[in-house]
Amino acid sequence: MPKLAMIATQGTLDWAYPPFILATAAAAMGWDVGIFFTFYGLPLLKKDLKLPVTPVGNPAMPMKMPFGSEGFQNINWPIPNAITSNIPGFENFAGSMMKKGFKNKGVASVEELRDMAVEMDVKLIACQMTMDVFGFKREEFIEGTEYAGAAAYLEFAVDSDVNLFI
Amino acid sequence: MPKLAMIATQGTLDWAYPPFILATAAAAMGWDVGIFFTFYGLPLLKKDLKLPVTPVGNPAMPMKMPFGSEGFQNINWPIPNAITSNIPGFENFAGSMMKKGFKNKGVASVEELRDMAVEMDVKLIACQMTMDVFGFKREEFIEGTEYAGAAAYLEFAVDSDVNLFI
Amino acid sequence: MPKLAMIATQGTLDWAYPPFILATAAAAMGWDVGIFFTFYGLPLLKKDLKLPVTPVGNPAMPMKMPFGSEGFQNINWPIPNAITSNIPGFENFAGSMMKKGFKNKGVASVEELRDMAVEMDVKLIACQMTMDVFGFKREEFIEGTEYAGAAAYLEFAVDSDVNLFI
Repeated sequence: MPKLAMIATQGTLDWAYPPFILATAAAAMGWDVGIFFTFYGLPLLKKDLKLPVTPVGNPAMPMKMPFGSEGFQNINWPIPNAITSNIPGFENFAGSMMKKGFKNKGVASVEELRDMAVEMDVKLIACQMTMDVFGFKREEFIEGTEYAGAAAYLEFAVDSDVNLFI
Repeated sequence: MPKLAMIATQGTLDWAYPPFILATAAAAMGWDVGIFFTFYGLPLLKKDLKLPVTPVGNPAMPMKMPFGSEGFQNINWPIPNAITSNIPGFENFAGSMMKKGFKNKGVASVEELRDMAVEMDVKLIACQMTMDVFGFKREEFIEGTEYAGAAAYLEFAVDSDVNLFI
Repeated sequence: MPKLAMIATQGTLDWAYPPFILATAAAAMGWDVGIFFTFYGLPLLKKDLKLPVTPVGNPAMPMKMPFGSEGFQNINWPIPNAITSNIPGFENFAGSMMKKGFKNKGVASVEELRDMAVEMDVKLIACQMTMDVFGFKREEFIEGTEYAGAAAYLEFAVDSDVNLFI
């Protein structure tokens, strides 16, 4: 059985997709999968999953909105961070548009992907050291979360076929 | 023959270099190389490659401009995003300066590196699912692009010697 | 002896922790470790390590400050980049708070982690090509730094058990 080990270090809505999509795809193929959540990635384990989206003015999303109607998508958005972040609620708006975009295309939400991962026995491991530094408490995280340190991650990773730092 | 599998998820000019530099270096050493483009990395496959550079005020580039004359490079640029993004055209300017910087040092442009990768039989694979979500069409992408999903990536990655998420 | 190869591509205070924490943890377990510093990660090798922190308004750190007193940490900080970057010195303030946060929790500073890595024979390799492009000089970097290109990295990575692009 192939083995996939990921370190999830980013806690925005957009960057929540890659680890959960890869985890569920691999688990569906019968792989043994573990995700080690650390640093800014810890919020992905919270029961109450309210994630912001990376600002639309971010050059990482330069061309068009990846969601919304076709007309809306075709607009070029050369909006600098300085402007979007001054529109109250803009990031919430972008976040809910992104969620709809994934839904319209038949892609599960982050919550649904995470539930699927748990059902498929993907190991979800929170980094205890960064939890302490960032002030997270175990009761904030979903059931089934395991707690460990960098050494436990390395032991899981060493015989994994695919290792990814996300 | 060693095998290198990369996931390219970022679509700015600066972050376009790592996957193509690693791909061409590995291919030149006789490796079998595949790059799976997904998420914000999909624009790297566009025929018309107009990539923005990450803003210079970004703390990721805190010290100096990595291009331009020596005097220009020695200036410290403590410019916050809020300022650079308000200078019309600043990002285009930074992008063309960065291209010149790489050229002055004998490093190929992103377009040239991508052409070299194609000639060296590097597999360029677009993630069909995120193409649908983001609204990209096959005719926008360069010839030779293959189309597949996460399962195909995992099958390529499982027996790769080096796996990288960029 | 297991082998860990990392590419460190980010030069901010927060993103300096992952490669050095993983390197020292793996070296403490007897692993053979190499870090290849390239791109924006090159400043992590400077003798004079003055790293900025990613702005607090960054959506990657959406919930709370991961440092400071408990009351301070419990404040929600919906501060957009546009605002924090206009407060003179805010990023320095955030950087020094972050350093204190790690210190309060018994985590070493980036400098201490880097010193530990050197003592533990972690290989620190600077990418010669990006040094040339970015205008870095060897005398700026700490002693013990090795200098090589992408081919040397690939040769180190090919028989590593864990490969990470950070």
